[in-house]
Amino acid sequence: MHLPHPRLGSARSAVAPFIVMDVMAHAARLEHAGAHVIHMEVGQPAAPAPGAARRAAAAALERGQLGYTAALGMPSLRARIARHYAETHGLAIDPERVVVTSGSSAGFILAFLGLFEAGARVAIAAPGYPPYRHVLAALGCEPVLIETRAEDRYALTPETLRAAHREKALAGVLVASPANPTGTMMDRAALAALHACARELGLAFVSDEIYHGLDYAFPAVSAVAIAEDAIVINSFSKYFCMTGWRVGWMIVPPGLVRTMERLQQNLSISVPTLSQIAAEAAFDARDEMEAIKHGYEENRKILIEGLPKAGLDRFLPVDGAFYLYADVSAFTSDSAAFATRLLDSAHVAATPGVDFDPYRGHDFLRFCYAGSPAEMHEAVARIGNFLKAG
Amino acid sequence: MHLPHPRLGSARSAVAPFIVMDVMAHAARLEHAGAHVIHMEVGQPAAPAPGAARRAAAAALERGQLGYTAALGMPSLRARIARHYAETHGLAIDPERVVVTSGSSAGFILAFLGLFEAGARVAIAAPGYPPYRHVLAALGCEPVLIETRAEDRYALTPETLRAAHREKALAGVLVASPANPTGTMMDRAALAALHACARELGLAFVSDEIYHGLDYAFPAVSAVAIAEDAIVINSFSKYFCMTGWRVGWMIVPPGLVRTMERLQQNLSISVPTLSQIAAEAAFDARDEMEAIKHGYEENRKILIEGLPKAGLDRFLPVDGAFYLYADVSAFTSDSAAFATRLLDSAHVAATPGVDFDPYRGHDFLRFCYAGSPAEMHEAVARIGNFLKAG
Repeated sequence: MHLPHPRLGSARSAVAPFIVMDVMAHAARLEHAGAHVIHMEVGQPAAPAPGAARRAAAAALERGQLGYTAALGMPSLRARIARHYAETHGLAIDPERVVVTSGSSAGFILAFLGLFEAGARVAIAAPGYPPYRHVLAALGCEPVLIETRAEDRYALTPETLRAAHREKALAGVLVASPANPTGTMMDRAALAALHACARELGLAFVSDEIYHGLDYAFPAVSAVAIAEDAIVINSFSKYFCMTGWRVGWMIVPPGLVRTMERLQQNLSISVPTLSQIAAEAAFDARDEMEAIKHGYEENRKILIEGLPKAGLDRFLPVDGAFYLYADVSAFTSDSAAFATRLLDSAHVAATPGVDFDPYRGHDFLRFCYAGSPAEMHEAVARIGNFLKAG
Repeated sequence: MHLPHPRLGSARSAVAPFIVMDVMAHAARLEHAGAHVIHMEVGQPAAPAPGAARRAAAAALERGQLGYTAALGMPSLRARIARHYAETHGLAIDPERVVVTSGSSAGFILAFLGLFEAGARVAIAAPGYPPYRHVLAALGCEPVLIETRAEDRYALTPETLRAAHREKALAGVLVASPANPTGTMMDRAALAALHACARELGLAFVSDEIYHGLDYAFPAVSAVAIAEDAIVINSFSKYFCMTGWRVGWMIVPPGLVRTMERLQQNLSISVPTLSQIAAEAAFDARDEMEAIKHGYEENRKILIEGLPKAGLDRFLPVDGAFYLYADVSAFTSDSAAFATRLLDSAHVAATPGVDFDPYRGHDFLRFCYAGSPAEMHEAVARIGNFLKAG
């Protein structure tokens, strides 16, 4: 009885893989052969979770039982997240509006299922984080990619949103600031104008704030500071360096809390308990996190100053997150092939823009600067030699 | 700017909540008022994760970095799970066919999205685990509930499956053995016959094996022992007492591995790293787990012998898992109201069958016997007094 299965995957599950995974695999092969690769391809902090978070997890392990929690999350963690908004944004958020999630990934699933019917069209920026379009598609929605412009700081605008809505009859819009892969941010005026336009058009407004806390050019503004009807998605992965813990949160309008609770009960029962305990303690590690952020700022400075001298002088405003999005069209019209050459010759791993932007991604590379300053200096030197060697 | 959001949840997200959650909340109120409640409502082991698992997690916390893992899971855990099939079932499973998931919950999402198009109809048994129908519906599929019969040990059969397929043009079938809420099991012949029928009809065959290891009446048979084209979903939550860790696995046909990998990359990036490390170590704790299983067996015996004497003498075969599904139609035609009275008067929390079976659930209560033997004796005594008091 070893016949092949009649089904080899549904059509709706035929989403594209991350090309960054191929870059990682290639880098691993080079390292296995003895190369010293500088990893700028994955959007992952080099630092571990804060000490306070790990100590809280260790203490919980000693205590023993780690059962299911309430579907919306441990009440103490929901309250702590609400307090975080008071501390960092001066906002009074009702803990009842906080939904703890298994990373921002689960937040997107809850948001898309909870807000949108099958067939709904949702506007997203190009370039953008690939799972936006893949998860929307897998869940029966149609991602509507809107090409962004340099003069708009690579963000959606009321004009481009309105034009897309005229053509496509949208149900919602998803924004990210700081954005991945561009590292660009929307200021308060830009975010408020876009939200006002979305409200006027009757669109759900989803704000991905996973890179909040990592803002350098100007302070990041949360969509909850602008309107209660925004759906905010955030995570402990980036600022708090807790990628592998898979814990994040949403702030949702009061009328959506019960929807999210029912979905989470059925889709995942609850969020990993140990990760919730660690996340709550992570808020006490602000000094540690700020020191790590200052390291990113130093890295950012090294790249902003060094890359132009190395010959890579066209990149987007390096506002936040830990990404620099470089225009390499002066050297190639195929950024994927260029990334392969850069990795093979200079042992610098970067991600081709085609992962993020089907239109212009072939002109761009994304560099993650979450490593060490020494690595950034070395990367600048290697890129300079690579470009000189032509 | 505090207008209500135009959308208060999509129609497709309007799934039913778990009624068990209401029972739990009610029990908590009674306990807050000083009552000693015996909890038989939640399907959760009373024991913590195995010591070996907790020690492995603690050691990993010391080491520091807990980043993303490969989307399909840590290679060492995938290999260990494959070895588990060799050890317990004498089966050679290629580790490449193992997909590590965030609990069986994520396994269902991957299976339903990966196997079924929107609109696909999937047969499930009534009674059954509520998220089967809720998650199928939220993901655009149509759950087709098939009423099971006592003479079939409350399982689907080739005859009932064939009849449902004639009427509904099914795309797949989902089975569970041991089953929740019934605790009944399918023997090898029943499982093989149902699989052969599904294959003949061209249906995907999904086997929920989350309660494997907790079999008392006869040994549970894995669907992978019957055919390579079955999709198996399992978890560390029940036998290994790791509910709050949210880690499980699937065994999928070779042709579906890449589909599952792409879906997991996009839907969740990876499974909690610490939970994967702990899960791998859990396999070394078989003695500890078997001792806990023997406790369940003792509990089962107490209930099977005690409940009839207490006046509750009609229940399904108590084959596996840690559930006893009792017919209370001699006392009520509203099991939800009956459960409330049992909780209020006798302080025994049980789950009404309406959570699991829209057809006959009003006649049944589910009792979970994952507590201590002392609690089981006390529950029998209390139920006896409750029924006598009428």
